[in-house]
Amino acid sequence: MSDHICSTGCNHFSHLNDPDLLAEFAEARHSLRANISGTKASGKAGLGGVTYRPLPSKKAGENVSHYYIPANKDTVHWGYFSKSMEPLVKLESGDYATMEAVTHHSFDDYERMIQGDPGVEGIFQWDANNKAIDRRGAGPMDHPVGAGGGMGVHVCTGPIYVNGAEPGDVLEVRIIDTMQRPSANPDYRGKSFGVNVAANWGLQYNNLLTEPKMREVITLYEVDATGAQTTAKAVYNYRWAPQTDPWGRAHPTIDYPGIPVDRSKIKLNYDVLKGYEIPVRPHFGMITVAPAEADMVSSNPPSYTGGNFDNWRTGKGSTCFFPVAVPGAMFSIGDPHASQGDAELCGTAIECSLTGLFQFVLHKKADLPGTKLYGLDYPLLETESELVVHGFSSPNYLKEFAGAADPAAAIKGSLDTAMTDAFNKTRRFFMDTRNLSEDEAISLISISVDFGVTQVVDGNWGVHAIIQKDIFPKK
Amino acid sequence: MSDHICSTGCNHFSHLNDPDLLAEFAEARHSLRANISGTKASGKAGLGGVTYRPLPSKKAGENVSHYYIPANKDTVHWGYFSKSMEPLVKLESGDYATMEAVTHHSFDDYERMIQGDPGVEGIFQWDANNKAIDRRGAGPMDHPVGAGGGMGVHVCTGPIYVNGAEPGDVLEVRIIDTMQRPSANPDYRGKSFGVNVAANWGLQYNNLLTEPKMREVITLYEVDATGAQTTAKAVYNYRWAPQTDPWGRAHPTIDYPGIPVDRSKIKLNYDVLKGYEIPVRPHFGMITVAPAEADMVSSNPPSYTGGNFDNWRTGKGSTCFFPVAVPGAMFSIGDPHASQGDAELCGTAIECSLTGLFQFVLHKKADLPGTKLYGLDYPLLETESELVVHGFSSPNYLKEFAGAADPAAAIKGSLDTAMTDAFNKTRRFFMDTRNLSEDEAISLISISVDFGVTQVVDGNWGVHAIIQKDIFPKK
Repeated sequence: MSDHICSTGCNHFSHLNDPDLLAEFAEARHSLRANISGTKASGKAGLGGVTYRPLPSKKAGENVSHYYIPANKDTVHWGYFSKSMEPLVKLESGDYATMEAVTHHSFDDYERMIQGDPGVEGIFQWDANNKAIDRRGAGPMDHPVGAGGGMGVHVCTGPIYVNGAEPGDVLEVRIIDTMQRPSANPDYRGKSFGVNVAANWGLQYNNLLTEPKMREVITLYEVDATGAQTTAKAVYNYRWAPQTDPWGRAHPTIDYPGIPVDRSKIKLNYDVLKGYEIPVRPHFGMITVAPAEADMVSSNPPSYTGGNFDNWRTGKGSTCFFPVAVPGAMFSIGDPHASQGDAELCGTAIECSLTGLFQFVLHKKADLPGTKLYGLDYPLLETESELVVHGFSSPNYLKEFAGAADPAAAIKGSLDTAMTDAFNKTRRFFMDTRNLSEDEAISLISISVDFGVTQVVDGNWGVHAIIQKDIFPKK
Repeated sequence: MSDHICSTGCNHFSHLNDPDLLAEFAEARHSLRANISGTKASGKAGLGGVTYRPLPSKKAGENVSHYYIPANKDTVHWGYFSKSMEPLVKLESGDYATMEAVTHHSFDDYERMIQGDPGVEGIFQWDANNKAIDRRGAGPMDHPVGAGGGMGVHVCTGPIYVNGAEPGDVLEVRIIDTMQRPSANPDYRGKSFGVNVAANWGLQYNNLLTEPKMREVITLYEVDATGAQTTAKAVYNYRWAPQTDPWGRAHPTIDYPGIPVDRSKIKLNYDVLKGYEIPVRPHFGMITVAPAEADMVSSNPPSYTGGNFDNWRTGKGSTCFFPVAVPGAMFSIGDPHASQGDAELCGTAIECSLTGLFQFVLHKKADLPGTKLYGLDYPLLETESELVVHGFSSPNYLKEFAGAADPAAAIKGSLDTAMTDAFNKTRRFFMDTRNLSEDEAISLISISVDFGVTQVVDGNWGVHAIIQKDIFPKK
């Protein structure tokens, strides 16, 4: 590995057509990586089965590596981010990683989404004698609903440390490809599954028309694991019934992630959404670097460093830019989705394990002036045709509510405040990176920028602003 | 004309390829209709130059007419809707109308947007001795800022009475084509102009970064009147300077529509948005039937009958469906836009006069069960690929605030309440017109429906829900 640090204009896409890299990901598309080629990483990462191998470089003096990071009990952190974690790997700007992300809703159908998959089985293992991953959430370990309190619910893969990344830099993460994780149960060969959960944190929960009120409903969806089928179809749904976890705690609602669902207590209804076909939009609901403000942070509310911002445009071909807040950036992914609508209304998308191929490019602070990344203090998303600015009800809730016992609980989710934040950021974008006057920026926003509802269910609500790239002067 | 009333499944698109109709609209695309063919309508419509002529029918027993409705002082109503107005024409379900819509911001550049255009000159005529259209808005005639108080600002063309339309029916309005209105000033031949106004009712007004605070800014945009050029470009901008109207009233801000702008008081800045090209999305910000709740209603807040709902998708090829609230429906258009972003952030779009070709199809109440129109109590928009449900902060503010002196002023604009309304309507849509259970509807919404910010500047704020039509079971 070289110590090359990317600067503005640096183009690592030269490696995108590397035949080894593509072959490796193609293989990953069709099977879980039981045997991983390459060199085993050292330390904790070696324990987790992380491997790397160098890729042939096309630039003199440059050497690029590809990492494979499976998801298992040794490579995930559940429900929280922390700048103090031991990173799985330390990699260089320009390096690639294939990363598996596992949905925290897998236990809603053990047979299809866990059984036979060693990595996922290991993450969710929980019986009377043992709980493979005790901490789930950023809360206290003696929380009454379980360790970590479910204050943060996502199974997060990572973190990755990017060598040379310092606060003030920007980390670019290119999502080169994604795949749905195939069911490891031979009965469901070639299929992949995800669940949508109409949960107690959804917008509908206190506003239901039909009885029983305040119910939670799980709907299972099937997608084609090969990616050949581009739509998802409902299989069944069921209503959450109170569950008792292996350690004897009652869960009348979905108040803790990964609760084993006793199938004898639920009733499957197969008469659901017959004939409906949902176009899939595979993406990572949670994609992030670690914040600086606190050491143990809930994975639920999105913030300036990214996190659970739940924009379905964060899929194949898109690029995320994150303001680096701590040394090494500490990158993680989680909350994989097969499809979501803007708003994520009932609390979840189609929660479906995914694997992604990512490339990491570090932009040093000194190189940012004059680029679209100057002054970046939020996760910026770029697609082929759009730049997407993310506004939140609280742009940095860890700072705003630093004195609160639980900053995440102190946020007042509102689209009105998120709209104002999205406007403020978009105006700043045009003024600071395009040198427009405030009057020019405001007119341009009103006539050409589309504001949408990112999500209303993550505590810190989101409004995004979509800037069409074709408005910009042609060079 | 026949007394045929369309029912479900009735397809009047058979006339869409009528050569006379297309030739007439093609002619209208390139020049204002100084001499209008066809038979002059009687009464007020005759005074306004409205004409009609029958089109050859392709169905036995059916006869369809095409109306041409120019915009002039006799065919527009300014800033209000009223169920009690004398309609311009009474037409049959299946009939067509070419309707001119004029922007109420035309006086922001008299030379380019009014001069030489008899219809527009007539609407805006205002000197010490005469004001062609005194009432502008639904307020009192002795309002201190001017008759009607500017409580409602849009120049509205209409109303059209649809024979047989009764409360409980649904009026379908197909937008077959649109054209930008060409400048009538020979100096600007072949061009069309619109203005964006960062106004006191915009979201930015109390949240400006640079001095002078609380300023209003007008930006002029040029588009190609032939439609060959698909982008708009800024020409200049200027800051609003206090104006005195011809009757001596001072207007320190843009507090009344159609105020003649004294060019000696403003300073044009041509250094604006150099090289930026805004894709045009011609559409009607205001498209409506008349509400039943009151007799004189401001054109500003959108409501269940449509009105100023400001969705840029309301353009060529789209169809609007309105719940008929009063006999004859009383259809009007206004607030024509060349382009707008979702949110219409600064208070306006590119306000640009347009002409549209519309077809009207009446759906009787008895025919609605089992169709997508059943239970419709809001303006529903359909495009080639989408159904768009409109939610508002107050779904029917005229009913909710019936006791208020000014119901429009009583609305509390909020995206949070508009979001809940958009969800409620979308859920009802799936349950009532697709026979889904509430659980199916909620899951489908969360994984596939995109919620966006329609506008935050019309008093009654809007959130729309976009349903992709390809999710529905194939027949």
